[in-house]
Parts: sequence; C-alpha cells; structure tokens
Amino acid sequence: MKGPCTPGVIYVGDRHAGKVHVISRIRCEVMSHSDASPEPVTRGDLGTIATRAARRDPEGVAFVEVDTGRTVTYGAFERWSNAFAAALRDRGLTDGDTLAVLATNGVEMYVAHVGALKAGVVTLFCNADLTPDALAYQLRDGDADAVVRDPALAPKLAAFDGDLDPTITTEADDTDAVSVASLAGTDASPPDVAPAPDDPALVLYTSGTTAKPKGVVHTHRSYTYGVVNTLVGGDVRRDDVQTGVLPLFHIHQDLWTKAAFCVGATTVLYDDFDPGTFLRSIDDHDVTYVNLMASMYRQLLDAEAAVDASSVRRCVHGMPMEMDVRERVVDAFDADLQKVYGQTETLVTTFLDPRWQFEKSGNYVGEATPFADVAVMDEDGELLGRGETGEIVVRGPSVMQGYLNRPDASAAAWTDGWHHTDDIGRVDEDGLLRFVDRKGDMIKTGGENVASIRVEECLLDHPAVAECAVVGLPHDRWDEAVTAFVRVVVGEDVSADDLHTHCEARLAPFERPKSIVAVETFPYTATGKIAKAELASAHRDHYE
Amino acid sequence: MKGPCTPGVIYVGDRHAGKVHVISRIRCEVMSHSDASPEPVTRGDLGTIATRAARRDPEGVAFVEVDTGRTVTYGAFERWSNAFAAALRDRGLTDGDTLAVLATNGVEMYVAHVGALKAGVVTLFCNADLTPDALAYQLRDGDADAVVRDPALAPKLAAFDGDLDPTITTEADDTDAVSVASLAGTDASPPDVAPAPDDPALVLYTSGTTAKPKGVVHTHRSYTYGVVNTLVGGDVRRDDVQTGVLPLFHIHQDLWTKAAFCVGATTVLYDDFDPGTFLRSIDDHDVTYVNLMASMYRQLLDAEAAVDASSVRRCVHGMPMEMDVRERVVDAFDADLQKVYGQTETLVTTFLDPRWQFEKSGNYVGEATPFADVAVMDEDGELLGRGETGEIVVRGPSVMQGYLNRPDASAAAWTDGWHHTDDIGRVDEDGLLRFVDRKGDMIKTGGENVASIRVEECLLDHPAVAECAVVGLPHDRWDEAVTAFVRVVVGEDVSADDLHTHCEARLAPFERPKSIVAVETFPYTATGKIAKAELASAHRDHYE
Repeated sequence: MKGPCTPGVIYVGDRHAGKVHVISRIRCEVMSHSDASPEPVTRGDLGTIATRAARRDPEGVAFVEVDTGRTVTYGAFERWSNAFAAALRDRGLTDGDTLAVLATNGVEMYVAHVGALKAGVVTLFCNADLTPDALAYQLRDGDADAVVRDPALAPKLAAFDGDLDPTITTEADDTDAVSVASLAGTDASPPDVAPAPDDPALVLYTSGTTAKPKGVVHTHRSYTYGVVNTLVGGDVRRDDVQTGVLPLFHIHQDLWTKAAFCVGATTVLYDDFDPGTFLRSIDDHDVTYVNLMASMYRQLLDAEAAVDASSVRRCVHGMPMEMDVRERVVDAFDADLQKVYGQTETLVTTFLDPRWQFEKSGNYVGEATPFADVAVMDEDGELLGRGETGEIVVRGPSVMQGYLNRPDASAAAWTDGWHHTDDIGRVDEDGLLRFVDRKGDMIKTGGENVASIRVEECLLDHPAVAECAVVGLPHDRWDEAVTAFVRVVVGEDVSADDLHTHCEARLAPFERPKSIVAVETFPYTATGKIAKAELASAHRDHYE
Repeated sequence: MKGPCTPGVIYVGDRHAGKVHVISRIRCEVMSHSDASPEPVTRGDLGTIATRAARRDPEGVAFVEVDTGRTVTYGAFERWSNAFAAALRDRGLTDGDTLAVLATNGVEMYVAHVGALKAGVVTLFCNADLTPDALAYQLRDGDADAVVRDPALAPKLAAFDGDLDPTITTEADDTDAVSVASLAGTDASPPDVAPAPDDPALVLYTSGTTAKPKGVVHTHRSYTYGVVNTLVGGDVRRDDVQTGVLPLFHIHQDLWTKAAFCVGATTVLYDDFDPGTFLRSIDDHDVTYVNLMASMYRQLLDAEAAVDASSVRRCVHGMPMEMDVRERVVDAFDADLQKVYGQTETLVTTFLDPRWQFEKSGNYVGEATPFADVAVMDEDGELLGRGETGEIVVRGPSVMQGYLNRPDASAAAWTDGWHHTDDIGRVDEDGLLRFVDRKGDMIKTGGENVASIRVEECLLDHPAVAECAVVGLPHDRWDEAVTAFVRVVVGEDVSADDLHTHCEARLAPFERPKSIVAVETFPYTATGKIAKAELASAHRDHYE
C-alpha cells in the first residue's frame, strides 16, 4: 500500500506501523517510540551533538572540503540538517525507519546522516565500494526504506529490486531526485522528535571476511559512548583541525567526526587519498590531527612534497605499523603517534598511548578507553591473567545492541557476559593489550598454534616485501601448513629462498612458512582488507 | 514489619516492596528494577567506572590520604567496594533503597558510596556541616533506609527520629556498628545487580539559601554524563595526581574523583584544608592538578611554605577570582588556570578555558561542556542572543531526573523545554557566558536592575576588603537600596567614606551602595556561602 504522493515532492514508500526492526539477542522489539521518549530537558540522543556544537560556536568551522574549498560552520550545519530532518519527516519517514546512505565523504552526506538522527530515522551506512549485488543484499537485509546516494554511485543500486523510489541525491543530477544540496541555506526547526537512548541510531555492516556481512545495530546510547571513548582516548580538542580522509561510512572516521562535534573542532574532508594532495592540505589548513591507516602513512613518507607540517600535534593510526615507520612518522611530523583498536560491534575500545610507541614493537593495541571494559578469555569462559593468550572480550555501554535479524549470531557473540571479538590477544606485564591474530586466522600446524600476523610481520620486515598474507593450507603432515603469499616491491629482485632465509633467522621452526608464493595482487574485501578466506580457498590444493 | 535479624549482623529495617521513591515531573514511578535492567554485556551504570578502572590498571593508585599516608590501588578499591556492596545486599538493602552517607573525605566513605552504586542502592550524600535538625530533615525527606557515618559525626544524628538502626560506621568505634574499614582486604564478587540507566543513583540536597533544601535526584545516566562533561571539559588525564580537599559529598569533588576513575588518575584526599599542609602535599605527592574554591587559592598565596610545586600543570577553581589573584596563581604554579561553573541540578556545565583567563575580567564562566546545552532566556521563554542578559538555562543528558518528592518544583524549574538555573547571565561577543548574579540577588533600585555581584567585585577590588555581601534593602525612595556589608582585612584602617570614593570611581550612580556597613562576620550556609537572605532579613529596617 502506498501513502499519499504529492507531485514534485519526495515520497518514500511502504511504511508499516509496528514493523519489527531489530531482533536482538534478548528480545524481539516492535518499535514503540513514544513510550520511551525522554523528557526534552534531559535529551542526549546522538543528533543533539550537532545542536550543542552550533550553540557553543555557531561560527566555528565544522567542515572544510579540500576539493571544493568550501567551509561549513556549525551554525549552518545545524540549520541544514534540521531542514533535511524536516524534509524526511514531511516525506513520510518516521521513527525507526531506515535511510541508507551510499556516498563518499562530503558535507551533504553528513547532513543527510545527522538529519536522519534528528528525525529519529536510522542510518544504514553503505560502503561505497560494494558491488551492486553486495549492496542489494545489505539494503534488503537492513530493511532500507529510502536512500541518499551520490549521483556517481547511482548505478550501484542496479541490483536492488526493492522500493527506494524516489531516491534522494546528495547533489543535484539529471534525475527527479531531490538533492540534499538544495536544502543548504534553508532555516528550519528540528522536527518534534525525541529518540530514546535505546532506540537504534545506526546500522553498519561487518566486512564479512569469512561469512555473510552482518548488520551491527547501535543505539543512540551505545554510539554516544563510542564517541566519548574516541574523544577522551583520542584526546580531540577544541582547536583541532583533523583529517577526514578515511570513509565516513566506517565507524573510525565517523566516531572522530562526532568527537570533533563534541568539542567544536574542525574536520577536513577529502574526496580520496592522494599523498601529495593530502600533504599540501596539512599546510593549507593548518591540520593538527592526522588520522590514517598505517599503510597510508607509508605512502605519505614516500611522497615528495615540500610542505610545512609543523601544525600537526598528533597522528593516529589503525592497523599495525612497523617500528621504522613509526620513527619516520614521528620524525616527519614531530607529533605524538597513537594506535587505535576497536571493531564495529564495540566501537573504539583501546589506544596505545604515544609514550609506548617506541617501547612496544609488534601489534600492541594498548589500554582500554574510559567506557570499555576489555579482557582476555579462555575457551571455558574464564578471564585470563597477564601473559596468557585468549580471545579479546569487551563489555560496556558502547557495545552494539545486537546483530540485525540474527539473534543466533548475537547470542553466539555474547557468551559468559562479554562480547567476543573473534580476535586473539594477551595483556603484557605493563597491562597493555597485544593483538595476536584474528581467531579464524590462527593456524594450527603440527600441534602448534601460529598467529598468521606474526609471520606476516616478519615478512613485511623484509625490504622487498610490499604486502603479504599468511594462511594455513591443508597438508598431510602439518594438518595446516603455514603458507605465505607475498607481493614484491616493484623493481626489487628477491627469491623465495631469500625470504625463507630471512624467516629462519626470525621465527621458530614451526612458525616458518612451508611455502612462499609470489603473487601480483590479492583478493580484497570492500573495506580493503586482504580476503584471506578467499585466498586460502583458491589455493586449498596447494600441497596436493 | 521487620525481616529476619541475625545477631552481630547489620539489619536494616522496613523494606517496602513497591515503595514510591522518586516523584519526578513527568511520572510517579514505582521502582521496577528488573524490567529495565540492561543486558550485562552493555552495562554502563555508574559503579562500573570502578570495575573498569581496576581492570585497566589494578596496581594504579586510586587514592592517597595525606593525613594517614595510606594509598589504595584501583584493584584494592574494587574488591573492597564489592565486599561492601555484598554486605549491603546481605543485610537487606535492595534496589532503590537509600543509604545516607555522612562523612568527611576518606577512602572508607568512598568505598561505601561506590559499593552502594554497585548494590543498586541510592546514595544520599549529606553535608557533614549540617546542624542535627537540618540533617534530620534531609534524612526524612530523602527517605534514608540506612546510614554510613564517621564516628565523630554520630552525634549529628541525634535529631533524627526515624529508623536507621543499626548504622554503619566508616571506621570502628565503640558502638556495635559494623565498619566499612573492617571489610578492607575482603575479596568479594560484585552483587548480581544491574542498575538500569534511568534508575536513581545519587540524591544531593541544594544548599537552600532561600528556601527549604530540595533533594536533587541523579540517575546513573545523568550522573555519568556529568562525569564525562567534567573529564573532557576539565581535561583530567591518566597521569594526573589531583587534589581532593573539597568535600566529596558535593558534586564538584565527586565529579572530579569519578573523572579520575575514568582514566586511572590519582586523587589525594585531605581531612581539611590547611594551606601549609596542602602546599607540602603538592611537593610530597607530585600533584599535577589542583582543584579549589577561589578563596582557598588566596589563602595559599598568603601562606608561607618553601615547596616545589613544579609538578602542577592545572589549577581549577570554582567561584570568581580577581584578576590579580589569577596572575599570582599562574605565577606561583606555572600552570593553566581554569574556571568551572555548574550546579547540583545540571552538574558541570561550562568552563572558562585557560586561554581566556587574562582576557576576561569579571565572573566569566565560559563555554559549554560537550553534553551540556547552555543558553540565556528571557522571561517569555525566548532564547536571547549575544550581549543580552537573561536567565541561564541548561538542557542535556546531565540534567537531574527531578527534585525528590517535589513535582511542583521540578515543573517550575523545567519550563519552555529547559532547566532554569535561577542564575542570570549573558553571552559576550566571543561566545563566552558571563555570570551576572543569582536571580534572587538582583537588586531592583530606582527602576534599574543592579547585579549584587558587580558591586561586590568592585568592593573586593579594594585591598582593605576581605569579604563582602551586597543586598537590596527596603527604602522609600529607591524601592530597594543597594547596601554593602563588608568585613575589613585585619589590621587595615579604612573608612566607609574611603569605600564610597572607591565605588564612585568604578560604578554608575545607580549601582553605588547607598550605605556601607562594616561587620565582624557573616551568616553562612552549610556549603560556606554567605546567607544573603538571612543577612537582608536581619537588616530589613536599616533605612527606617
């Protein structure tokens, strides 16, 4: 059944009163918003972060877009997102409906997201690199009611056969879709909606390296705690100008952006990551806070650009960084270097404090943030002491509400009172958590457990190795044989024997690769990680 | 009806199932705990702050007591407060019952408070300086079921005729009361209780300068946001060693103590404020973070002590500080100086950033914390722009649940969607909030409004004035006549004429005191503020 459709106005189809939106582990909840709405005076739902930022400093710069040169103040952002929220409600979206956001970094995309929060509408952040089929799966599974998409990403929607008609577009294109951009400058009050703390706010899909991606449901409450953990752990300050080059549709950049809103800092947005452009932007915009994956720092160090980067005070990185790269980053930027760890289900949970950067080689992830309780657990559900290796478990108010429509998966993740991360780790004598490996990537070989990451780190230490992945492949004698796939740096000449010799000096016999295979490229997930399961599957007959 | 009473074991009388505990503005709620308990994995109630601190760094020092030399680690504090929580539950206290805490600063007092949080028991923090009658009023009004008190404060309970028998004592005395101290070293699991975010956690009474004190109810949720506002706004860090000389039974010191728990910092506890002892403790314990009322800084500057205070990086103060004192504090400590503003109902709401300390004379309170929305409103409920004077209003998740048993007072405080602070202020051209006066202390004189504080600041600028209070007294011509009461610095010789001349050079004619009266001392409230209403009442015939 369709509701009233006014010509020239966005209509979003099929509203179902009482529709089941979230099936969490503990209960199947019919969205019943009004019962739980908080008193307006005590509201703290996620969208109010923007309202407070605008009151604190309406002229403060929320965003700078490097590619367009445009700046948007907190006051303008507030009015614009209010207008978008009102437009969503006017066009029939109501509490607990879901707006898919399919866009790369830009102010319009973020206006749509924050506007949805204010309208009580759940944001389903879609990875812009998904294939049309994978995207269609998430839109169906995530029960998307409407979509905001970049004009350039419209073709990605081709495989989705559900009802998103008409769609909303970030910037005007040659379709009839109403654009977010057209609402800029509109002055509107926020809708009279007060999401309750436990109402869903965002759905984000896991990368699904080993299984179908799962929708992670965060409430206004859980996500706000994730923002607080980021703000305090990452030490984002009022005067910071931070980079926003990682995708906003991932928790990492989104959490930092919301942390900036909490204190009135500025986020610089980039279309994509080009090392030269990025370095020049640091100079142009007096960037103080750089936030990148480890591999991107390596690209920066290799780039040639004569820029003044003295404004930078902090460099945050996700993913492990070799010690020599850490040294070069700190040298280059004269800044504190800090490692962050977390996952979509728990948001940011630990940081390796800058003081430890040169004390702790290997993949240390550090100490828990204020509202994350982080421990290591054995297979019997007992918490382990320092020095003991087990699964990293997390509990606390930043943990997700559950997996969407997958009560079994939620129940499986939440045993013994803790959320299980599927990551293996141990806490060292200084109380610092060290990441050992993904649980599924541990290799069981000849009765020993080998962390694939340990072998990968060893190979990456060789100057000729640009990228590598280590997996366990079926083997008569070893059960799983440690097997390395490496991509060699262009122009380097290195043999498998050289690499075996390199490993012999650094790894125990049972840890050493039984075979080292050179490859031209790897299969990747949409989030840019090497798809190890796919790699292992493709080579499962390697030892036959 | 009494429950089972075991000899030698604490029994707390009269549990009423379904008892009405909190009457907030919007609903009269029968405590129904189990319905609302959060999933253990996602718990974030206030007591879990201690649990996370203990896991993060069990050997980290939570408290140092200056007077006893004792240190208590986060690990020991966790076990101790678990044991106290279990003892409370064993002795019959249950979800939503209220434990009064009547004690000065010390670890036992804080163990009792955090143990109560873990047991789902509400803490009623009592001011240790209350008279027995005033205390009896709060215990009755606050519906206290049990009490933890210092041995020395036991006589204060004399005027209370309700059932607190037997009481609990912080340290063993010559009564049969079980002591918190006796549970030190006990290893216990926390009770299997999970307070829900909207369950009451603390009740704190307003100082009641003008009316009967009102019980302010904070939930686990609202108080946690207060802690976050303090942590971020006050920039409390992992390595900080902060002073804890302000009373823990007030929000100010308690919020900073919980902020320290969030990051694993240390709080140094003092029995009382002695400037010499305090200065030596900075040296002895490498204090980094000093937190005092403005008047205490003045006492420090006048004290003679040869100590090394170079460890101090930050000095926070409540209450206004004259510019020359600010300069002397920054000189003495070579530290950032930061002003804080808030009230029991809203917790910490604004800070004046150190960068503004020498730019903004007068009682500036600065910018809003991340989760406080702060504005200025006129009498018609309209928000005002920069430069306009009106009532300071606050909204956000750190605002109290309501006044206990006073739905009318809650409703009166919460009009037009905001909490009304009863403080008058205005936002300046830099977006900084300036406190003008308490609403009730504004003087209406000859058709003009005069902020009593403006006149007080002027008089305090005179070197001979130690303390002063300005009130409006009935006057035929002026309606209210601006009248100043001053206490002169011992040994100074100053006449009323001298002070009138001082004011003439600095105040507009309508602002100048019509009369200046020297006094030996002032009437004070239990929180140490001058009781202006009492002063005005005693002198109401001054102009007859």
